[in-house]
Amino acid sequence: MALIVQKFGGTSVADLDRIAAAAVKVKQEVERGNQVAVVVSAMAGVTNELVELTRKVSPLHDAREYDVVVSTGEQVTSGLMAMCLQAQGIAARSWLGWQIPVHTDDAHGRARILDIESAELIRRLGDRQVAVVPGFQGLGSDHRMTTLGRGGSDITAVALAAALKAQRCDIYTDVDGVFTADPRIVAGARRLAKITYEEMLELASLGAKVLQTRSVELAMKHNVRLQVLSSFNEAIGSDTPGTLVLGDEEIMEQEMVSGVTYSRDDAKVTLIGVADRPGVAAATFGTLADAAINVDMIVQNIAEDGRSTDITFTVANDDLARTVELLTALQEQLGFARLVPDRNVVKVSVIGVGMRSHAGIAQRMFQTLGDRGINIQVISTSEIKISVLIAEEFAELAVRALHAAYGLDKE
Amino acid sequence: MALIVQKFGGTSVADLDRIAAAAVKVKQEVERGNQVAVVVSAMAGVTNELVELTRKVSPLHDAREYDVVVSTGEQVTSGLMAMCLQAQGIAARSWLGWQIPVHTDDAHGRARILDIESAELIRRLGDRQVAVVPGFQGLGSDHRMTTLGRGGSDITAVALAAALKAQRCDIYTDVDGVFTADPRIVAGARRLAKITYEEMLELASLGAKVLQTRSVELAMKHNVRLQVLSSFNEAIGSDTPGTLVLGDEEIMEQEMVSGVTYSRDDAKVTLIGVADRPGVAAATFGTLADAAINVDMIVQNIAEDGRSTDITFTVANDDLARTVELLTALQEQLGFARLVPDRNVVKVSVIGVGMRSHAGIAQRMFQTLGDRGINIQVISTSEIKISVLIAEEFAELAVRALHAAYGLDKE
Repeated sequence: MALIVQKFGGTSVADLDRIAAAAVKVKQEVERGNQVAVVVSAMAGVTNELVELTRKVSPLHDAREYDVVVSTGEQVTSGLMAMCLQAQGIAARSWLGWQIPVHTDDAHGRARILDIESAELIRRLGDRQVAVVPGFQGLGSDHRMTTLGRGGSDITAVALAAALKAQRCDIYTDVDGVFTADPRIVAGARRLAKITYEEMLELASLGAKVLQTRSVELAMKHNVRLQVLSSFNEAIGSDTPGTLVLGDEEIMEQEMVSGVTYSRDDAKVTLIGVADRPGVAAATFGTLADAAINVDMIVQNIAEDGRSTDITFTVANDDLARTVELLTALQEQLGFARLVPDRNVVKVSVIGVGMRSHAGIAQRMFQTLGDRGINIQVISTSEIKISVLIAEEFAELAVRALHAAYGLDKE
Repeated sequence: MALIVQKFGGTSVADLDRIAAAAVKVKQEVERGNQVAVVVSAMAGVTNELVELTRKVSPLHDAREYDVVVSTGEQVTSGLMAMCLQAQGIAARSWLGWQIPVHTDDAHGRARILDIESAELIRRLGDRQVAVVPGFQGLGSDHRMTTLGRGGSDITAVALAAALKAQRCDIYTDVDGVFTADPRIVAGARRLAKITYEEMLELASLGAKVLQTRSVELAMKHNVRLQVLSSFNEAIGSDTPGTLVLGDEEIMEQEMVSGVTYSRDDAKVTLIGVADRPGVAAATFGTLADAAINVDMIVQNIAEDGRSTDITFTVANDDLARTVELLTALQEQLGFARLVPDRNVVKVSVIGVGMRSHAGIAQRMFQTLGDRGINIQVISTSEIKISVLIAEEFAELAVRALHAAYGLDKE
């Protein structure tokens, strides 16, 4: 017997038929003899509608009232899910955020969970009553509703799994798990049976939108075993799992590279002819940091004249216009000749904890891209990741070539 | 300075424009120097959609989960209303049923309010903060959401007005007040400035669907001054009121008759040739009472042969089929010759507390109908009401004739 948390996202509870299908997955776990807590999102589209209502009232609305309005989406699903389970003969009840309670701080609209009172829940689970918990919502110290921000239902599920000391937290979504590459681009992409928290974090931050970064961080912190799997795949249950996300130490044989990802979310900025004197880089990036603009990759070249340099870096596409505006205003002070923005780039990354113990991974990446005539514009590396910025039109070609080069294609 | 409760029904908060218009009415009261608590219904149509969802899951669903689902409609409106007030510069916050709390019994789906904790609300109102309270919802002794049943937002408003000892409870709806007759039928119908609780109760139970019976009873019990007025009429504020519903003792000059109403909700059943022996009527109506079928008007005639009688009574249209079925099954036992059902009837009533002290009101009613050749099938009277059952096709003619006969037409 185990205690399992199952979380169903918006597409997995999109309508009553999908809620009933999700209830079948819950029933299967109960019939295996497991205790089950279910976390549900709002039905697909509902949260957006509610957010739109609040936005129309006033763009500068009270975040506390925003939380009152948007938290209702999950509440509706929790009641319907409890009913669906009962209709399938499973004892169940809903537990709203204020009933458990899920204590959060008072940062309305983007609250953080502080504590989940679990004693009564654990007692009810022990009585074989499934607990249905609306994700995304909590109770502030001011005794008012809070919400956790986008992706908050994943956070609720992981935090609940930690509080209940669950054996596993299953995140049901509309994909079968985590793949070695985007299956729409790489036909030979394989589903990974296991992946580490750190790899998952890199994947999440690099555009593989299966799990929110915050929920993976929380799972890592509390050592919650996550499983990503599809609610749309009838065949997939706990016996034929999706992808397990777990600690380093639980993965015996690590693959050298787990996956190849790409992201079109970045833009490149090059400052040409920057005066080669101390403090210029600090002033440039300090200005952006003050404006809360996140700079990702940075590279600096010494120009041929030996007296000026070029600085290249990437920012999120959404921040490009503001970046250009801010730096252009400081052109004289910073002392650069020209600013060249470029949205026509893609970041391609290979990820794998195996890199730590294998030499030559970077070399193989550069060689593979070079062989296809793909020019590398910027490089950045971490312990378990190598990213390169290349021209956007080479994205698919690069991902496919790297997927093959690291032996990730299906047999 | 006064403390006012304002309640806005579904059509008065149908969309964001309507909510903003309602907020203007609140602002007007605040600017008069009054303390205001606002009770809101769900946006028009929302509750029906939510009820439909629960019905689709299972007709025999858990009433506790039903309450979790359907109470969200009012919650959304309360958050949006608080935002709208803030956008108009009025300090406001929402108070959900479990936050106040509004304590109810545990009859989920049709709970009764037991107590409203008002100390904190009164303190905040004193700080000039408008309290926005979702109607219809409360907190059961089991610490779970409850709902009060249809029309529950009116109940919330009246109970809140009683708890806060409010000077007035304004019920905003889509009509201008209570009229001497249905203005769609009687061109000369006038809005009543004042009406007693008892008259309002008779009107409510007779098909003038302005206020639910339960809320009027509650107002009478706690002596809450109600005002019925339209949220669609820009000109109507507290200075040019709708209809005040209040205690007998507050109305100095009582009109003899306050209004003429009609209802098509009843059906007539006649049992012909009933054996003239003791206990037959008791057995007949006992059977219906056991089946929770409400019998309204009853009349019994002695047949010409002196050995059998006819019994005529009315039941709600919705109960007619079951009534016929039940009594037909007992035909031999009850000993009647024939059962004749008739949906082709209308109940027309004249109502007024002035009847108590005026003779001849009934006589004038019978005379007026007789003059038009309208046959009276059944009569029933109470202290402040006379009702007659007539053929359905005479409904409008009878209402107009009586309205004129009692001098209710506009000058």
